[in-house]
Order: sequence, then C-alpha cells, then structure tokens
Amino acid sequence: MTASSSLFFCSVHMNVLSPKTSKCPKTFVCYHSKISYMEPKGNKFQLDDVLDAQQFDRDILNAIFEVARDMENIERNSPDSQILKGYLMATLFYEPSTRTRLSFESAMRRLGGEVLTTENAREFSSAAKGETLEDTIRTVEGYSDLIVLRHFESGAARRAAAIASVPIVNAGDGPGQHPSQALLDVYTIEREIGKLDGIKVGLVGDLANGRTVRSLAYLLAKYKDVKIYFVSPDVVKMKDDIKDYLTSKGVDWKESSDLVEVASECDVVYQTRIQKERFGERLDLYEKARGKYIVNQNILKVMQRHAVVMHPLPRLDEITVDVDADPRAAYFRQAKYGLYIRMALLKLLLVGW
Amino acid sequence: MTASSSLFFCSVHMNVLSPKTSKCPKTFVCYHSKISYMEPKGNKFQLDDVLDAQQFDRDILNAIFEVARDMENIERNSPDSQILKGYLMATLFYEPSTRTRLSFESAMRRLGGEVLTTENAREFSSAAKGETLEDTIRTVEGYSDLIVLRHFESGAARRAAAIASVPIVNAGDGPGQHPSQALLDVYTIEREIGKLDGIKVGLVGDLANGRTVRSLAYLLAKYKDVKIYFVSPDVVKMKDDIKDYLTSKGVDWKESSDLVEVASECDVVYQTRIQKERFGERLDLYEKARGKYIVNQNILKVMQRHAVVMHPLPRLDEITVDVDADPRAAYFRQAKYGLYIRMALLKLLLVGW
Amino acid sequence: MTASSSLFFCSVHMNVLSPKTSKCPKTFVCYHSKISYMEPKGNKFQLDDVLDAQQFDRDILNAIFEVARDMENIERNSPDSQILKGYLMATLFYEPSTRTRLSFESAMRRLGGEVLTTENAREFSSAAKGETLEDTIRTVEGYSDLIVLRHFESGAARRAAAIASVPIVNAGDGPGQHPSQALLDVYTIEREIGKLDGIKVGLVGDLANGRTVRSLAYLLAKYKDVKIYFVSPDVVKMKDDIKDYLTSKGVDWKESSDLVEVASECDVVYQTRIQKERFGERLDLYEKARGKYIVNQNILKVMQRHAVVMHPLPRLDEITVDVDADPRAAYFRQAKYGLYIRMALLKLLLVGW
Repeated sequence: MTASSSLFFCSVHMNVLSPKTSKCPKTFVCYHSKISYMEPKGNKFQLDDVLDAQQFDRDILNAIFEVARDMENIERNSPDSQILKGYLMATLFYEPSTRTRLSFESAMRRLGGEVLTTENAREFSSAAKGETLEDTIRTVEGYSDLIVLRHFESGAARRAAAIASVPIVNAGDGPGQHPSQALLDVYTIEREIGKLDGIKVGLVGDLANGRTVRSLAYLLAKYKDVKIYFVSPDVVKMKDDIKDYLTSKGVDWKESSDLVEVASECDVVYQTRIQKERFGERLDLYEKARGKYIVNQNILKVMQRHAVVMHPLPRLDEITVDVDADPRAAYFRQAKYGLYIRMALLKLLLVGW
Repeated sequence: MTASSSLFFCSVHMNVLSPKTSKCPKTFVCYHSKISYMEPKGNKFQLDDVLDAQQFDRDILNAIFEVARDMENIERNSPDSQILKGYLMATLFYEPSTRTRLSFESAMRRLGGEVLTTENAREFSSAAKGETLEDTIRTVEGYSDLIVLRHFESGAARRAAAIASVPIVNAGDGPGQHPSQALLDVYTIEREIGKLDGIKVGLVGDLANGRTVRSLAYLLAKYKDVKIYFVSPDVVKMKDDIKDYLTSKGVDWKESSDLVEVASECDVVYQTRIQKERFGERLDLYEKARGKYIVNQNILKVMQRHAVVMHPLPRLDEITVDVDADPRAAYFRQAKYGLYIRMALLKLLLVGW
Repeated sequence: MTASSSLFFCSVHMNVLSPKTSKCPKTFVCYHSKISYMEPKGNKFQLDDVLDAQQFDRDILNAIFEVARDMENIERNSPDSQILKGYLMATLFYEPSTRTRLSFESAMRRLGGEVLTTENAREFSSAAKGETLEDTIRTVEGYSDLIVLRHFESGAARRAAAIASVPIVNAGDGPGQHPSQALLDVYTIEREIGKLDGIKVGLVGDLANGRTVRSLAYLLAKYKDVKIYFVSPDVVKMKDDIKDYLTSKGVDWKESSDLVEVASECDVVYQTRIQKERFGERLDLYEKARGKYIVNQNILKVMQRHAVVMHPLPRLDEITVDVDADPRAAYFRQAKYGLYIRMALLKLLLVGW
C-alpha cells in the first residue's frame, strides 16, 4: 500500500469533528495533540485550519459553498472589497506550484488582503541549513496572519498546524492532501449541474496516482444516490481502499472500459492527465496508457446537453483542444471556481462567517 | 534572414489598425483571428493589448505620451494615487527580466493597483508538464485583470492575446518585440530634446541584433525630417530590411564609422551593448567589436550642449562611468521614463483615457 | 585577518556621526564620499541609511527602541496602519535569505506600505550580463522609495548608499554587516531582561565566524557594567579584534569552557549554530565542535528564573527541541522583535520621527 493510501485510511478513520479542543497555546510544544479544525459557533462552524478533504462533512461543505457564492458576487461587483484589509497571508511553498500559489494570492488580494510570497522555500536558506519545518513555521507565523503551505512531505500541513498559532492551509503536501482542490471540484459540480445528490460522475484517466480523483470520490460519498464510474488503463486503476470505502457507504460504483458509454450516461466526465513521472523507465506503458481514453468530439457527441467535462489541469492531449469551444467544457470555469473557494476559505479562517 | 527580421517585415506589412474588430468571446477558440488593439472612442483610442511597436501610429504615440506626462505628476505628487485601485496585474515571466518586471510592478503599485508575480514561469509546474501557453493564459486570466507576459518565443504575446479576455502586454517575446521599451525610447527623446520632428539620431553599437534600435528606427520614421546615423562594427551592422523601410518612408539615413563626427551632429547618441552571447565561440570578433565605439569624455566634448546620450541598459563599458556625471547622460532618466510609459499603458488598458 | 575583521576595525574607527553632510546630488558621481547616515533634527536624529551596527550610538539605539515599542502596539492593535501608505520598498536580494526578506516585507506591509520583490537578483539578467551594482541601484531607485539590499560582497551596501538618492538598508553584505539583526538582538535583551546596563551575557558556539555575536559584543560595549562570557570550541573562538576592543572600552570579558557555570550566572545565554560550511573538508572537526556546547534541560536547570536563551536562528540541535516549551526560550520571540525593529527602521527612514 502506498503512503498515500495509508494516509487516506488514517484520515478517514479519524474523528475530525471533535468540538472545542482549542489549539495549543504558543508556549507549549504539543506535537502529538489532536487538532480540531472546526468548532460550532452559533449555528455555524469555526474553521481553524484546512488540512485535508476528510475534515469536511456535508453541512460544512454546504456552508462553505454558500460563502463561495458570495465571493463570486464580490469578485465581479466589488473589485475594491476590503473584507480582509489589514490581514497578511504568507505563501510558504516548498515546491513550486505557480497555479495554486497565484490562485491563493489572487483570492487574498481580491478581498483586500496582503501577501508575503516564497516561491521556493525548499531552497530557503534556513531549510537548506537543516531547520525543521516547525521552526520555520514558528518564525513565519510571527510575520503573517495565515500560512498557505505547500510541502513535499505527506503530513507536513498537519505538523505545521500542530505548532502554529495562525491558521494553516494545506496547498498540497506531497502524495497526501490538497483539500482546496477537492472542495473546488465538488463546488464546480454543484454550480455546473445544480445538484450533488443523484449525480453520475465518470472518473477517467490516472485513478491510481491522482489525489484529485481519490479525494473527489471520497467527498461524493457524502451525497445521496451518487453513481461513480471508473474508466482507466489497467496500469493506473483506482485502488481498493477507495472502492471499499464507497461500498461501505453504499455508493454505487462500477469499472468500465467503455468511455463512450460512460460519457453518454454521466453528468460529469472528470478527465485526468496520465502522469508520465509515475512510469519511470517504462515509457512504453506510459505511451500506451495515455492514448487510451481521450475526450474529443466523439465523446462530446454522446454527452448529454447538461453534462460537463472537468479536468484539474494542466492537460496535455487527454482532452483535445477542439473541445474547449463547447459550452460543456467546464475546466477553465473550474479553475475560476477554485478562486472563489479559496476566497471563501480565507475569509472563514480569518474573519469567520 | 533571421527570425527577427522576418517577423519584423510581417508586422510592418500587416494592417494593425482595423477598428472595431472586437475580441473573441471567451467560449470561442480563434487562434487565427486578426486582432485589433485599438478602436476609436470619441476622439480617443481604445487600447486593448500592447503587442508590438508597429501597432502605434503618430497620433496614438502622442496621446500615450500625454498620459505619460500626467503620470510623471502623479508619481511625484500623488504617492497615494488610487487610479488602479481594485485592479490586479499578473506578471507572467517565462524568462527572468527583473528590470522590466520591477518597472511594470512599480507602475502598477504607483497607481494603487495590486500585483501577482511569477518570476520564472518556465519552471511553472504546468508549463514543465507540457501545458500550452494558451491553457496557462486561460487559467491566469481568471485570477487577474491584465497579464504582462515575457516569453522566450517570438509571437507568444500575440498568441496569448488571441485567447485572452483580459489585456495582454508584451514585455518581450524572444527575438521579437518589446514595445514598451520602444515607446519609452521615443518618449525619452521627446522629453529630453523637446521634439521629434527634425531630430538627428545616432544609433551606435550592435545594430544587427538589438531589437531596441530596430524598433526605434521604425518608430522614428513616423516623424518628419528625421536623420539617422548608423555607427557599428562591421559584424553587427544594421540589416537591410530596416534600411529599405527607412528609404521607402523618405527618412534620411547614413552609415558612418566616425563616432566623433556623428556625435557632434546628433541630438541623440543612442549607444547599445555589443551582445557577447551573439558571437558564440568567436570571442576574438566580440572583443574587437566591443571596443570599437565607446562613448567617453572625448565624445562628450564634441556633443552639442542640448544633446543627450541614451542607452537601453544594462551597459558594460561601452559608456565609460565618468560620463554618468554629465547632465547629458540621459540613460538613467530614460529608465525612469520607462516607468511613466508603463504607468500610462496600464492606465489606458484598464480604465481608458 | 579576515575581510570581516578588517572591515570591522575600519568601521569602528570611522567617525559615523558627521552631521549635515548631505547625500550626493543625483547628477554627481561620488564613489569615495563620506556618508553620514544621521543628522540631528530637533532633539531627534535623521536616519538616512542603515549600513552597519557601528553607526548607532547609545542614544540612537534608545530612540529606535522607543519607536520599536510603538510598532509593537501598532502590529497588535492597528492591523490597518497606513503610516507608510504610498511608499514602495524594493527588496533587492543578490542571495536568497527568505527569513530576512519576509521580515522586512512583513514590516513594510504592516505599516501600509508596498513591496517590490527580487528573490534572486544575482541571476538578475542585468547582473548576469555584467552590470555593476551601482547601475542596478540607479535603475531600481527610480522604481522605489527605499531599497533593502542583500549582497554577497562585503561593503556592497555602502557602495549602494554612496550612489543612491533613496535610503539603503543593509540586509547583510557577505561576511560584512547585518545591522538590523544586531539591533534586534540588543532590543530583545532590553525587552526580555528589562535593562542593558549591568547585564551578563554568555556568547556560545561559533564565535569566530558569526557576525551576529561579533556585532552584539560591539554594541553591548556601549552599555555600563556589562560582563561577557565567550564559550566556544577551540577552532571557532572569538577573535582578538573584538576582545581588544572590549578591553579598550573597559568591558569585563572572560573565556570559559564551562557552559553550565556560565549559564548559571548569565542573564542571557546567546547560542549560535556551528557553521558546517566553514569547515570545508574537515568534517571531523565540525562534528567535534558542534556537539560540545548544547543548550538542553541541564542548562535550563541551572539558569536563573529571569534569564533567557537567545539564538539568531536557524538552529539545528545546539538547542534541543524540549527547551522550546520553557518560557525562558526567547528565540522565537526574538524573531518577532526583529519585525518591530524593521518596522521602526522603515518608518524612521521614510517618514522620520
């Protein structure tokens, strides 16, 4: 079992909503404490950190999506919003991810907040000299009101949150989690299809390595009457842990090798990139896998009028460029929904509901 | 003929002012559409993108320069200008150019706008994974109101503008164009000499490879009674395409090997760096070329009182350091005029006249 | 004698407070001029540049510390401070130092100012092409109101200040100076211990190469009845220049190899990292040196209740992690005091007292 899978189970089995466990006071070291990221507050929730997709239940997702809708209005109509005026966000990126970084930084600025940027914290002189992540966090929290952390090690965000007195947002920790991506995927489906209960979703491409599709499958299980199709080359099939989890939750799922049939039935065709870097020297396997399931005009032809094509981006040729012009191509809108989700998260973490 | 030359001709011959061709709607792919960057608007122009020097005619140049003059006042007297408050500019740099980037970012901030920075988008994880420029632009346009693009490929800015729903500013695309540099050069001459008609300009140094001097010669042809002298080592002489173009426009030009004589006659001595990287292994040719025409005290002695020395910077030793103290050394002021030109362009692109 | 030592003496012997020598007018080159960074102004001082620790005397330190105290209030209670609104700071870093850069950028933003960032100016295309620091400064000063310079060459900040018309802050120049670090160390002692006269300070670790401890010893000599203990492995002992200087100023100092005894007597135990990079191939010497003096629970046990442990960070294992939870562990608070000192310096440089 990979690190990713085992982490996943660990998180799934963990009780993530243990209200009122307050965060560690700053003068205390509490590496092994259980963190709660949400406490009830009136009839709302207090969001303390954003660490993994598993921390969100259906009510919280709905509440966040409501705020995201407000953010759409703000971004369009209030270019001069001052909701986060006076707040300072640090983007501490131990590996470059310009897309994610720009999305968070844009979200912060669209709400009137300010940003401190580190594009390559791995070469951070201190990290290079052997400083621990914990020490770095303790320094950077003194300079900022919130830290968006991208790290190459699974669990890094959780370690940071254990020590930090400011909110931590996990913007991807190695093979681990990337919760804002998971949220934006679900939000995109709701915005594009208009509902989450009763939807049919085809997950296509690299289902073994993509944390995106794994998290999405996990979150979809929170909704009713969902049907999931897995369409992938044999070498990168969805792993058993997720299948077992879906089964345990009563989600109807099915493996298929017929993308045309799946596309004709689904509300959402979620395409992903076959990740070359996972194949090592076996480029022959990679080449075989990448060409197998392509979303093109033939797929569009069978898709329903209301259905959409999603993709976490970047795409190579697993969606042909001539699909872009079709109104059902939702992947660039999906990137934009990511901005609204991040605006919502930043607002909730810094000023609450 | 080099890529640079052929591109130049292509652009020269293109009709760049086709009013009212509106930009592509976002849901459409239109790679091969003809773009118009300017439409009449009252008696002013609507600036949509800044892609190349050839898009500007004399009237537009004058109009931009008027705005640049306003910007000088704002920069000096209104440190708290809010003209671009609520606007967000993304600097998407596929190759580093700190000088240009800082100039644009300073321009944006001086007008109250905000900035998203990518210093090295070529290592952008998405680009490294094979994402097209078009896909990157479609993502980044969702996060920002304007994109300043620096790219290593000629024509990249035009490709970006064809797809983008926000204004694109070309901050240099490989051997191609760097229009804000061209504008600031002409603006510097107007501000320092007080006129553009009737001026005498000596272009010195690497005239074969410098896009700066090529664009400047092109733009000067729009003014009356201009005289241009070319002074360069034999290996880096001005190419025939520009000479032919000047001739066709009735511009009086002359090649000379006597920098002293040229300097004594000119209003502007525009010195450039001999670019070592163009000589490959032939360092002997480079060494011979670089020492041939130096602006020093001997040149200052013969220059007229009102004349100026310009240089696009960085300089090595083609202008000796002891020239800096002379009031006719205009090259650092020239860099500052660049700030005003960029402030003007950003204002015109985002809020109009 | 190292470059660092000789520079140190040079600066010590220099008259740093020569009032009213105004800065060079912009049209003049004055590489060898003597710069004054402070002029009396009413009963206050005018701060022009921050170049080295030696420029500050006791009165100026006290005055800066007063402002830093105000800054603590502002940071905590006025997240929306506009003291530096409309001002633009450029961080021109020729070598990466994310900690220092973030600290300055946070300081600027906490006061409402804006920032232009260069994380790696050494690869600055212009520097790579051979542009001098002076030319770069002359360009960047046109884009900003203040330049924070980090450079790999000793004396770079002084060269920059000689040419610049905007304030220069030295954020570390090679083996030379890092004055804001020196100021924050003294400020931390005052804030944590409540006084500077009469204190006992143990400097521990790499005393030969650490510019931090050298500057701190120098500044402490300005206070009365100070006692300094040097505790270090033989290979990295404090150099004679500082010892001689302390003797000449009547400061009581002593070398010791007994950290427990020193810790029991001191108000401040200032631990530093043994710098591996200084040992070259002699890793055996490094390993021997690094394990010799560790601050751990045994040291805490003998330390007085009011005493504190300081460290310039990053730390490896010269302070064990279990020390962090002790209230006397002051090193993360020290990093935060650095923010206040930098806020104070920026305010004083840009808007005065």
